[in-house]
Amino acid sequence: MAAKPGLYEQRRNRVYDWMAREGISMAVFEDAEGRRDSNIRWLTGQPGDALLFLTVGRKALLMPWDINIAKLHAHAEHIRPYGEFDRNPVTACLKAAGIFKLPANSRIEIPSSTPYPRFLKFIEALMSFDVICREEEGLEAVLKTFRMVKDDEEIRIYRRAAKITNGLIEILEKQLRAGKIRSEYDAVRLIEEECRKQGCEGTGFETLAAGPGRSFAIHAFPAYTTEAFGSRGLSILDFGVKYRGYTTDVTLTVASGISRSQERLLGLTERAYKFALDMVRPGEAALDIAAAVDSFFAKSNKTMPHALGHGIGLEAHEEPVLRSRNSSGILEPGMIITLEPGLYDPRLGGCRLENDILVTAQGPEVLTSSKIIRL
Amino acid sequence: MAAKPGLYEQRRNRVYDWMAREGISMAVFEDAEGRRDSNIRWLTGQPGDALLFLTVGRKALLMPWDINIAKLHAHAEHIRPYGEFDRNPVTACLKAAGIFKLPANSRIEIPSSTPYPRFLKFIEALMSFDVICREEEGLEAVLKTFRMVKDDEEIRIYRRAAKITNGLIEILEKQLRAGKIRSEYDAVRLIEEECRKQGCEGTGFETLAAGPGRSFAIHAFPAYTTEAFGSRGLSILDFGVKYRGYTTDVTLTVASGISRSQERLLGLTERAYKFALDMVRPGEAALDIAAAVDSFFAKSNKTMPHALGHGIGLEAHEEPVLRSRNSSGILEPGMIITLEPGLYDPRLGGCRLENDILVTAQGPEVLTSSKIIRL
Repeated sequence: MAAKPGLYEQRRNRVYDWMAREGISMAVFEDAEGRRDSNIRWLTGQPGDALLFLTVGRKALLMPWDINIAKLHAHAEHIRPYGEFDRNPVTACLKAAGIFKLPANSRIEIPSSTPYPRFLKFIEALMSFDVICREEEGLEAVLKTFRMVKDDEEIRIYRRAAKITNGLIEILEKQLRAGKIRSEYDAVRLIEEECRKQGCEGTGFETLAAGPGRSFAIHAFPAYTTEAFGSRGLSILDFGVKYRGYTTDVTLTVASGISRSQERLLGLTERAYKFALDMVRPGEAALDIAAAVDSFFAKSNKTMPHALGHGIGLEAHEEPVLRSRNSSGILEPGMIITLEPGLYDPRLGGCRLENDILVTAQGPEVLTSSKIIRL
Repeated sequence: MAAKPGLYEQRRNRVYDWMAREGISMAVFEDAEGRRDSNIRWLTGQPGDALLFLTVGRKALLMPWDINIAKLHAHAEHIRPYGEFDRNPVTACLKAAGIFKLPANSRIEIPSSTPYPRFLKFIEALMSFDVICREEEGLEAVLKTFRMVKDDEEIRIYRRAAKITNGLIEILEKQLRAGKIRSEYDAVRLIEEECRKQGCEGTGFETLAAGPGRSFAIHAFPAYTTEAFGSRGLSILDFGVKYRGYTTDVTLTVASGISRSQERLLGLTERAYKFALDMVRPGEAALDIAAAVDSFFAKSNKTMPHALGHGIGLEAHEEPVLRSRNSSGILEPGMIITLEPGLYDPRLGGCRLENDILVTAQGPEVLTSSKIIRL
């Protein structure tokens, strides 16, 4: 053991402290197909496909689907293949309680995403324990609040991820202006290849490339095709690179030979972006910024059909959400959020401008260099 | 309205009939980030990001996140933007019950994936109704059984998807033999580009390309890099193309300059594949086939660390699962399954051979042409 507790241990220590205060003896996490949970990566380094059990006795037991992957990436006191536990989360939980020698009536918190029918199975199998599953103020809610303020290591990673993203934006603009990117796929391919050359795990999410024929949709379907991109009209390119697990999230709009109505959409979007950026500071409510942008658009009889922005991290969408309804976040130094105003019109096409912003005590620090490119 | 009920209407009719038998007045589906449900696509054509309500009165109400996408793709009697319903599934459900004028005490079935804390919110908001949420024999379980036997239209789509896949395998082999694919990314890029040229929506899942340095893992992490592929040793390429929503799923192993121990892994895998294929016929239990392959490997002191195969469709993993434990499926004509025996060794590397098989009354029809390529 290193004298100084490692990064993952530090993070787990925050969870153990919280568990002790809440009287939770064991916390359960699951990352599986259809129910992903990046907390496991945040707490152990294991990239996915695993169960994780934390005991208030300050030990972590990881059960990876593939033990070879865990040996390369995971940090935990105990690592045992999930196969030893019938690949069944309820069985695994019961056995973990045994391994940690939890006394009867101990409180075990299971994931808030646990489907109701499975919840009943947990309750039945763990009858001698007090099983809890809650959303508000529960385990995952607390981890969300921990994770929405990035630690120094995460900010270091983000500076590197942003640098890679910005290099990509530069190449994209250059190639667009040189007429070398002609299809949606050309743009996607450049991003895929370049980000991996720079040591990224890949893209943070499926790149959305929508040429003038498809940009009216918030999220084009399919995400990209071999159709024209950057040709006459409005094209949208929404992408992020995933570097050491963390994703950036930016959107470029490419405008070519556009009409005055299209230029009006662009101008409004750019002004909304600057307007929002000026409001970013610690203590500001996410809802207020989003509501102010909605009002800004409303003055021009426009409606933005999606949220203004969101936190980013190991997930492409994290807390806080900048939305004009049902949003409770207050900006704090260390948060990394997107600002992404956009307007969409079935006839004119769509435009969106999105950058990643680090909230600092001094105000916003724009990490990425996305923009509207007028060819 | 067309005189002949459309494909989606036919499918919904099967659900309505089942609802009538079960006394369910309204069925609720949700496809959202973190909780995907391809039933909505199967039932309406809407590719995703929506709620769907079916009433036993034989009407469908779709609430898409992006109305523009729904207008292009979805078939339903009522289509209204989710934004009108606060983007809140509980509120939306309450309002849908009002739109359909459900009498008090009607039974409403909500998704089996509903997290327990949200289940409580449904119960509270829908107090005047009888809300049910179940796994076994519930709505989604029934849809799984409907969907695991493909209809004629789906089989037609699969024949086309398999043809595209096989074209890709041919190009991949040619380029590997010509030394033109040298990195994992080279292989991935070829697949991405070629499948879109052929009109696919994209790949069915993130392509896994693992060169000799990384093939020991069942699912390499990251899924692909710019490291060597097809060089000395064993490389694995696991991919699928998504055509009109349906994914193929094949795995090639590429062997180059291998040792006798490595050749032994390949030979065993090929024999296991043929052994499994010979057992594919209607009436055979999925578990029995998987158990027979496990025994086959055990004779050589080898263990396969994953299931033998699974159904495919709108999802990369559907019913039935061919696993030697906890698997209950019985093969039926119209099922499309993968067979994918594989062996992995941290020192020698891994190999896997996977094809897609249509179960017919006459036995297996191998749709894809994946194989072990010895360079």
